[in-house]
Amino acid sequence: MPHAPRFTRIVADLPATVPFVGPEAHMRASGRRFRARLGANESVFGPAPGAIAAMRAAAAEAWMYGDSENHDLRSALAAHHGIDPANITLGEGIDGLLGNLVRLLVEPGDAVVTSAGAYPTFDYHVAGFGGVLHRVPFRDDHEDPEALIEAAAAVRARILYLSNPDNPMGSWHSAATIGAMIDNMPPGTLLLLDEAYCEFAPAGTIPPLTPEDPRVIRLRTFSKAHGLAGARVGYAIGTAPLIAAFDKVRNHFGISRISQAGALAALQDADWLAQVQKRVASARGRLAGIAEGHGLAALPSATNFVTMDCGRDGDFARAVLRGLMARDIFVRMPGVAPLDRCIRVSAGTPADLDAFADALPGALSDARDGR
Amino acid sequence: MPHAPRFTRIVADLPATVPFVGPEAHMRASGRRFRARLGANESVFGPAPGAIAAMRAAAAEAWMYGDSENHDLRSALAAHHGIDPANITLGEGIDGLLGNLVRLLVEPGDAVVTSAGAYPTFDYHVAGFGGVLHRVPFRDDHEDPEALIEAAAAVRARILYLSNPDNPMGSWHSAATIGAMIDNMPPGTLLLLDEAYCEFAPAGTIPPLTPEDPRVIRLRTFSKAHGLAGARVGYAIGTAPLIAAFDKVRNHFGISRISQAGALAALQDADWLAQVQKRVASARGRLAGIAEGHGLAALPSATNFVTMDCGRDGDFARAVLRGLMARDIFVRMPGVAPLDRCIRVSAGTPADLDAFADALPGALSDARDGR
Repeated sequence: MPHAPRFTRIVADLPATVPFVGPEAHMRASGRRFRARLGANESVFGPAPGAIAAMRAAAAEAWMYGDSENHDLRSALAAHHGIDPANITLGEGIDGLLGNLVRLLVEPGDAVVTSAGAYPTFDYHVAGFGGVLHRVPFRDDHEDPEALIEAAAAVRARILYLSNPDNPMGSWHSAATIGAMIDNMPPGTLLLLDEAYCEFAPAGTIPPLTPEDPRVIRLRTFSKAHGLAGARVGYAIGTAPLIAAFDKVRNHFGISRISQAGALAALQDADWLAQVQKRVASARGRLAGIAEGHGLAALPSATNFVTMDCGRDGDFARAVLRGLMARDIFVRMPGVAPLDRCIRVSAGTPADLDAFADALPGALSDARDGR
Repeated sequence: MPHAPRFTRIVADLPATVPFVGPEAHMRASGRRFRARLGANESVFGPAPGAIAAMRAAAAEAWMYGDSENHDLRSALAAHHGIDPANITLGEGIDGLLGNLVRLLVEPGDAVVTSAGAYPTFDYHVAGFGGVLHRVPFRDDHEDPEALIEAAAAVRARILYLSNPDNPMGSWHSAATIGAMIDNMPPGTLLLLDEAYCEFAPAGTIPPLTPEDPRVIRLRTFSKAHGLAGARVGYAIGTAPLIAAFDKVRNHFGISRISQAGALAALQDADWLAQVQKRVASARGRLAGIAEGHGLAALPSATNFVTMDCGRDGDFARAVLRGLMARDIFVRMPGVAPLDRCIRVSAGTPADLDAFADALPGALSDARDGR
């Protein structure tokens, strides 16, 4: 070997682990198909029919690069939210936006605050740019606003990450609590408010958009309620200077032209969204019933999933999860104690939930038998 | 304004300019539609019918994240090239791969070598990670292997960028020349061989793949010959350790599920590719004829575009370009002297080339009149 390239110091120190193993990888490993795909909080109800039609129509135009300014989609989002397009940037899902935001703000060694057990992909990007993560425990299965702010002030964090509603616990804070948090942000810390699940939250959860407030950036996605996880379209709402800075680093032609068309059509179908919200609410109710019928406590949820407290420790919940996966039910669970006493199950179709209900007793029984 | 977030030093110093203005942005500015879209070296002949069908079929499945390991596409590419999947990683077009490769290898202040007037998006990513670009002049409208290697050795470059066939000049080096270049790479420098246009090159241009050679990484794309620019699928072929390192930084779920399906189907349609190659060759011939009929020298091309020497300086070529754009013909041109005496015109349909032939005399006449 004449000479291998040298990686940067940050990269050389990064672990080779990945934030999530996808369901396809699990299926390749097991050699079997999942009966129910309830692990990634995808919307099993699918995208709006108009979005599917728009993507089909755009397929023949895929020889053209998408519009690098994402003009039509940004304009439609601006009109939808009653804000200026200069306050919106698009990215390859919230995951893509998280990477670029960290890159914009975090120098190697800079502090960043999040909750212990919050979104692993955010942590991945912070580590990836050499940031130093400070993790604040959840409190009663909620992210803890006061403790997060205190930590951000203490370590002079560049970013404070909070998801509302929360993933992986499904809990939420009121708009008033989040508003107070914004007002109490330490100077120099940006609140990164991940609102991937906002469409599932009860009224009074999501604070009004204040795009010119430099203390906060809001992240939204077409991956959850709009049923377009596979299209990779997320967006950020923030001050015009912060949004403009993304143009210095982003992959300008990075969003698929077909995805642009799909997201635009999805945004315009409010009826479909309302239907999805109704089906998700109904699925949450049924998931809670299944859980409680087997002695698990279903945590209240403002999302498209239900987190179920298995009532013992992380090893027990991991055994339950293994039992479900062995029965071809794809679910996930929080990675950190004490959240890891729970499993997390996405809203599914009635058939998906039948399959889950069918598999759960055996999984619990195996786990109780120490398998 | 209570407090705006502070950007990293690298970001604060970056210009707000973008690598390319897209055709949609031009059309929004002019308020008119282009008659011919010949500026971005897209494949106007479109993707294979099977790829369109596969993308249409995948549209309804867009609620699912794509496979984060891109397993099926990587396996198919590995089989296609007769190499191991561990030597292939996928990205959101070559642009996305370029960003991640620079991130893996370039520390702030590290030297990188490219040619003056080569791919602006590569330069954008090098600047974006704080690298220091050293630009070597083209020589007789070719990238200059000897001078590039000399520069890489002199500045201890981490990466040496070379496109073969070349964009924006359409020129090419033989596989033997590239092979000798690889053999002469200075220790510590990785040859980044951008082969976006390889499917259009004559036999003897593309060296055999040697994926376990640590001195080189090869970049390929579905954006050009496969007609899927809007799908955002590129791939890199390199040593297993270098390829594995991308997993430390990439957006794992970043490629659209629909695009994965489209690229897989495109790869399987060798007949379509052969047809596109034939049509491109024919369009190149006609473009050369049009150019020469108006006193412009058409440079030889191993790509899907023809670069035309307008015979005077950059100001003159820019005036020709303006005249074409004013006549609703989308074309681009090199940005740096002496390459900027040329305009660059993509292979088009017969109708596209009619429109170009129709617009060129007026554009030239305007330019000669100093308009």
